[in-house]
Amino acid sequence: MPDSQDIQSLKTLFEQELFENIVPFWETHSPDRKHEGYYNCLDREGRVFDTTKHVWLQGRQAWMFSKLYNQHQAKPEWLEIARIGINFLRNHAIRPDKRLYFSLTEKGKPVWIQRKIFSECFYIIALAEFSRAADELHLMKEAEEQFEIVWNWSKDLSQLGRPVLEGQIPSRSLAIPMILLNVIEELTSGTPAGYEQEIKECIRQILLHVHADKQTVFETVGMDGQFLDTMEGRLLNPGHAIEAGWFLHRWAAILNDDGLQQTAISMIRWSHEHGWDHKHGGLFYFLDYKGHSPIQLEWFMKLWWPHNEAMIAHLINYSVTGEQMDWDLFKQVQEYSFRHFHDNKNGGWFGYLNRKGEVTHSFKGGPYKGFFHVPRSLWTCFKLFKKIGN
Amino acid sequence: MPDSQDIQSLKTLFEQELFENIVPFWETHSPDRKHEGYYNCLDREGRVFDTTKHVWLQGRQAWMFSKLYNQHQAKPEWLEIARIGINFLRNHAIRPDKRLYFSLTEKGKPVWIQRKIFSECFYIIALAEFSRAADELHLMKEAEEQFEIVWNWSKDLSQLGRPVLEGQIPSRSLAIPMILLNVIEELTSGTPAGYEQEIKECIRQILLHVHADKQTVFETVGMDGQFLDTMEGRLLNPGHAIEAGWFLHRWAAILNDDGLQQTAISMIRWSHEHGWDHKHGGLFYFLDYKGHSPIQLEWFMKLWWPHNEAMIAHLINYSVTGEQMDWDLFKQVQEYSFRHFHDNKNGGWFGYLNRKGEVTHSFKGGPYKGFFHVPRSLWTCFKLFKKIGN
Repeated sequence: MPDSQDIQSLKTLFEQELFENIVPFWETHSPDRKHEGYYNCLDREGRVFDTTKHVWLQGRQAWMFSKLYNQHQAKPEWLEIARIGINFLRNHAIRPDKRLYFSLTEKGKPVWIQRKIFSECFYIIALAEFSRAADELHLMKEAEEQFEIVWNWSKDLSQLGRPVLEGQIPSRSLAIPMILLNVIEELTSGTPAGYEQEIKECIRQILLHVHADKQTVFETVGMDGQFLDTMEGRLLNPGHAIEAGWFLHRWAAILNDDGLQQTAISMIRWSHEHGWDHKHGGLFYFLDYKGHSPIQLEWFMKLWWPHNEAMIAHLINYSVTGEQMDWDLFKQVQEYSFRHFHDNKNGGWFGYLNRKGEVTHSFKGGPYKGFFHVPRSLWTCFKLFKKIGN
Repeated sequence: MPDSQDIQSLKTLFEQELFENIVPFWETHSPDRKHEGYYNCLDREGRVFDTTKHVWLQGRQAWMFSKLYNQHQAKPEWLEIARIGINFLRNHAIRPDKRLYFSLTEKGKPVWIQRKIFSECFYIIALAEFSRAADELHLMKEAEEQFEIVWNWSKDLSQLGRPVLEGQIPSRSLAIPMILLNVIEELTSGTPAGYEQEIKECIRQILLHVHADKQTVFETVGMDGQFLDTMEGRLLNPGHAIEAGWFLHRWAAILNDDGLQQTAISMIRWSHEHGWDHKHGGLFYFLDYKGHSPIQLEWFMKLWWPHNEAMIAHLINYSVTGEQMDWDLFKQVQEYSFRHFHDNKNGGWFGYLNRKGEVTHSFKGGPYKGFFHVPRSLWTCFKLFKKIGN
């Protein structure tokens, strides 16, 4: 078990990694003060290798800087960085029908739109956190209105133009209720007031993916939660399942729900056990429940974000259980992550490794990697160390 | 330089590999005689791991069996296998507006549709080759009519529902003219009659991707062929460029066009040089022209199909030039392919390797891998050995 000095050392490590490595890298290289918004395609050294601005990452970065401003230190430069993201999104990313694009040019002209709700979700959390930082209450109202629209879309994605065809097996994707639940937490600062029904519904839907008899969290299940013996139904995404686990932990604490807490603990432990590569270390990206070869070409790769999520999740487990196994799992992921993803030379974290843990992609930011999972994880763990250490 | 015995040995090797390994594997495991069509998701041993039927692969398999029936041996069982594919496609895959789905259930109910033209292209080649095999001329008429529709769609993909947005850089994708040119070859059995304008236009468009000053074939270029310094514009797909090279070789021969032949030779040599991994062997899947880290997660993997295409392409180059370098390139790819993709234990070829050449995915058929690239390559090389050997 860790002693108070272990905790203190880790707290310092995470604090330094966040504020002396990650934040400066993105503060220096990412803001586009001419056109507003952020360059999110940054190479190993932080140079812009493509000027496309991806909306998920614009929203997530504006959220993260607002969060650090609100919770760590009210640095005017962080608020300013958050503001250029918010301005860019409000001026360019949102359409009159309230859908948001997926990507924009440097100057904000639309390039692509997905038939999904995630651009919208990350916009909502950005608006909510920034409204608190800048004390602009009208933006919170916008965030709440946008959430209501997205909530309705989430019930039937055909409204976004996804084809509905006769041979499709009706199914549920874990991504949707888990992200919506996280959006509600950000929108409400973790007070359920006004969203009781939506919270209950998200939790109900997430739990349909949790099969205690199989000790497994499935990414896709039938409408009543039943296991589907297809490529999609057998798919395991350990990083996602672990992330869903810590989102549930937060609500278990808020709602004082011991049963939900036990479920969250188990989801995280099981998914780690399924996902950890006992040969080379690291969490696999995808697996097949029955051991078939997954069809995703990248299944065997080790991506940064499942490791970021797992650090948070195991540390919450430990903070709740105080058990050695949860601490050991945290340490296993933390040591792997700092050894493999941290870049000693140019700052920032790498995102993509092969099975053996060798870096395959040297960029620090790309269409799906920005200023989000790494700082959210370091920041959340830093706060947990403070709590555990006291 | 190879002597006649080398050529004879390779001819035998390719013949045996095709008719004693690949064809029996797919003949045994793939046909669904109850619902018609083919199971194309087959694990290492040939067992069906998912019953979804992917339309690209249904068309390609019906084409390949028809081709072998027409050109190698008129085995009734091959015609019967081709027929169940054609029946399945005609009964289930095509919509009244002549678009084809991307995937269907085992029984033929639609699951997914792409906003692309490739399901349609592989349907056309299947109809054309089968119509010759079964002597059913009405199917050739259907193929011709379908081609006319697809040709018109290819001029403006927004007709298929792809969003057109203000920030998109107008660009051309190599995939479209190269596949259409191949479809015309299959439709006409390599006689240009009636398609002179379309052939000319496909060749013109392909050549916009060939930048002799940079000795590079780009996957995506501007409308006038200009280099685009974006992630998409810098993307190299060596397997695709090599495949386009041998498609052009065929028309250079048909049209007796020496300049086009020289271009085809160069495209293949340059793309091999760009794409070959000098450290671990094999052709990379994607590269960035300026040496940036490609964003595709699978960029460093070695896929079966670029190697299948490269065997054909280098052997055509050699058959035309008689030069040692083309023979050496052929041998380099052939030896790599037989060593890494051939499965000694269960028959068939693997499809996906990591950078070092280790198998990462054990299935023999999946959503994008079926009875197509491997047999087309073995069959085309076998015929080339016969020609070279004489």
